[in-house]
Amino acid sequence: MTEPLTRPDCAALDAADPLRSLRALFTLPDGVNYLDGNSLGVLPAAAPARAAQVVQQEWGDGLIRSWNTAGWITLPQRVGDKIGRLVGAKPGELVTADSTSINLYKVLSAAIEIAKQGQPGRRVILSERSNFPTDLYIAQSLAKQHGFELELATSDQIAARLDERVAVLMLTQVNYRTGAIHDMAALTAQAHAKGALALWDLAHSAGALLVDLNGADADFAVGCGYKYLNGGPGAPAFVWAHPRHTSRFWQPLSGWMGHASPFTFDTAYQPAEGVSRYLCGTPSVIGLSVLECGVDTLLAAEPMGGMAALREKSLALTDLFLAQVAARCADHGLRSVTPADRQRRGSQVSLACPGVSGYAVMQALIARGVIGDFRAGDGSEAEPDLLRFGFTPLYTRYVDVHDAVTTLADILATEQWREARFNQKAAVT
Amino acid sequence: MTEPLTRPDCAALDAADPLRSLRALFTLPDGVNYLDGNSLGVLPAAAPARAAQVVQQEWGDGLIRSWNTAGWITLPQRVGDKIGRLVGAKPGELVTADSTSINLYKVLSAAIEIAKQGQPGRRVILSERSNFPTDLYIAQSLAKQHGFELELATSDQIAARLDERVAVLMLTQVNYRTGAIHDMAALTAQAHAKGALALWDLAHSAGALLVDLNGADADFAVGCGYKYLNGGPGAPAFVWAHPRHTSRFWQPLSGWMGHASPFTFDTAYQPAEGVSRYLCGTPSVIGLSVLECGVDTLLAAEPMGGMAALREKSLALTDLFLAQVAARCADHGLRSVTPADRQRRGSQVSLACPGVSGYAVMQALIARGVIGDFRAGDGSEAEPDLLRFGFTPLYTRYVDVHDAVTTLADILATEQWREARFNQKAAVT
Repeated sequence: MTEPLTRPDCAALDAADPLRSLRALFTLPDGVNYLDGNSLGVLPAAAPARAAQVVQQEWGDGLIRSWNTAGWITLPQRVGDKIGRLVGAKPGELVTADSTSINLYKVLSAAIEIAKQGQPGRRVILSERSNFPTDLYIAQSLAKQHGFELELATSDQIAARLDERVAVLMLTQVNYRTGAIHDMAALTAQAHAKGALALWDLAHSAGALLVDLNGADADFAVGCGYKYLNGGPGAPAFVWAHPRHTSRFWQPLSGWMGHASPFTFDTAYQPAEGVSRYLCGTPSVIGLSVLECGVDTLLAAEPMGGMAALREKSLALTDLFLAQVAARCADHGLRSVTPADRQRRGSQVSLACPGVSGYAVMQALIARGVIGDFRAGDGSEAEPDLLRFGFTPLYTRYVDVHDAVTTLADILATEQWREARFNQKAAVT
Repeated sequence: MTEPLTRPDCAALDAADPLRSLRALFTLPDGVNYLDGNSLGVLPAAAPARAAQVVQQEWGDGLIRSWNTAGWITLPQRVGDKIGRLVGAKPGELVTADSTSINLYKVLSAAIEIAKQGQPGRRVILSERSNFPTDLYIAQSLAKQHGFELELATSDQIAARLDERVAVLMLTQVNYRTGAIHDMAALTAQAHAKGALALWDLAHSAGALLVDLNGADADFAVGCGYKYLNGGPGAPAFVWAHPRHTSRFWQPLSGWMGHASPFTFDTAYQPAEGVSRYLCGTPSVIGLSVLECGVDTLLAAEPMGGMAALREKSLALTDLFLAQVAARCADHGLRSVTPADRQRRGSQVSLACPGVSGYAVMQALIARGVIGDFRAGDGSEAEPDLLRFGFTPLYTRYVDVHDAVTTLADILATEQWREARFNQKAAVT
């Protein structure tokens, strides 16, 4: 093994980083080394002023007039088009709305309807056993409603489980526990070859990876606003449908904002053409406005190479973290469950830690300002407890990676984690 | 007819108003006489600082830790309990979440499931023809899914249409066009007597009327955060289910925040006990925090008599408006479609205006700082074009009512409305 990089080496990488100016687009708290942007992105520097403007001028002064004068009525499409640039969706194909769970309900309903009408024998939704639970819960509800079955497979079994019984393949592109990437284009092609539709949750990929929904020929997609898009806690989510599907079906959450003409107040629902039919109720104006600030931080990278450049830096950061952990924490039995293969690695690294209490180690890290998170396993070898670290190339520096490993190594070497308080707490992925 | 009150008379009423101090809880723009709080409530004075605190301190500094340290995780219940005090729900019975349309989907689904299991022959959702369209659209979607029928009746036919075919009576308590109130307790009792469930949309009644969900023995309710609750544009909505129903059924939007134990990340959905199962995805933290400021403005009236005192002032304001219009705009054919009967009148007055262009009159009013809104009719006598004026007793003064009628009378007398621009525009009810 080569000698691990020193902190000065990492500082030199930061100084040479063509994306280094982007960090100034954020307000980061002092004394915090934040490696949890895959759970909740940090505050864009523009967001406080924008929130104040929406609250004080647009709402306070403009009042009801701002639906027109401040452009509130087209916010879902405007912010949606910006997100579309990050995930390979064309203008008008993607809208921001509601939560990821609710958007998944909309598109999975549409996918099920397509299957029922075109291929009524197919009754299976195939997904990954360690998909993020809310996706599985929504699928369970729809399966129950429609007489479908939700079948769960491990990551490596999925392709083999695609058969003539499968109506919809529903996957989160990047696994929230391991950070392993599914090959969207390949699995979509395999699903299509077997006659199934492919629905993708981009929660851990939008703003983190190069995503090309049209290039992959995906059928439906949803994604999260508050992780790599830096949209703030509980930010609105997004939804995309391939144009070949959008206007074929109602989605069941047929609220007035998805109507072809919301302000004629017709008694009969007539869905809007295109993806606007995936809107439902009155949109969260403050939430969408703040989300737009977050999305703008990613678009600010476009002149520097955009998502391709961000992805390259993300990989460099996770490469560095993996190498540093291997070199400096080797005595403590930590094991990465994140793929070493760069093609299969998302923007996080998760470490199994069989010899120590992962929960306590993470509490000790947080107490010293290194914020990652902990995800409990089921105690099995296949699903161990995990220390999870997210690397967001917009604002994470190489020295931050080095410093995090320094703190981790110290906590492990000194067994400081044994002092960490075991007050079990919630944490939102 | 007695002589109408003069402006000094109205100023005297304001000076004697025991609720007059509440107006200071809001930031109202200069030069605006805002009579559209039934569409979008005004800005609570506390909201900008609260929004800044959530964005800068809780999100910016606290980051992921704020789910615990700032209490984000219990926001839906905390704000829900506050709204519960305004509508006759006990603590733990009501949560804030999503939009009104989405919440309606949840509870109407539950009501349909109850009917299907208990009384499978009943296949009708009965509602009002001029119910707010999004309610009808959601009902149409669920009717289609479940093989039900949505039947629409005029207001006075509803009681007679309750029969053994009806599974669910779904009404908005206050009609958004006319401001007419349905008697919630009486219609619920009639529905129950006929074996049907009663589901109420409180969009135009929460924060405006005395509402007693438990007292009326209602089955389900939803309501809006951005009207009389002053929660800001697109504020989260709320949902209530009678305790006899809450834990009997899944609601179909079975997201992780409604799970019995969201942070164990189980693969199988297990709904939370009670109304928390009506949560779905990650809640809008900024939206909920700002909504709480709005709800607090109503709770501030509790020492002064609370909703009963607010309701009494609301009626005094609409009494005054009706009398002033009758006395001062009599030559122009305006006709109130809002009930003269105080028991049946919500917190707005809607005027049909057959001799003039209502749209142009409202544009002329808005140009002179009197903000109400316009709702187009279908051209029939039964559903005319309407000038709609909302009266929100927290911040509307008697002089505001007088001044609005002065402006309206002048626009009509001078035919100034003929100059108003006909640029048709959206407006959100």
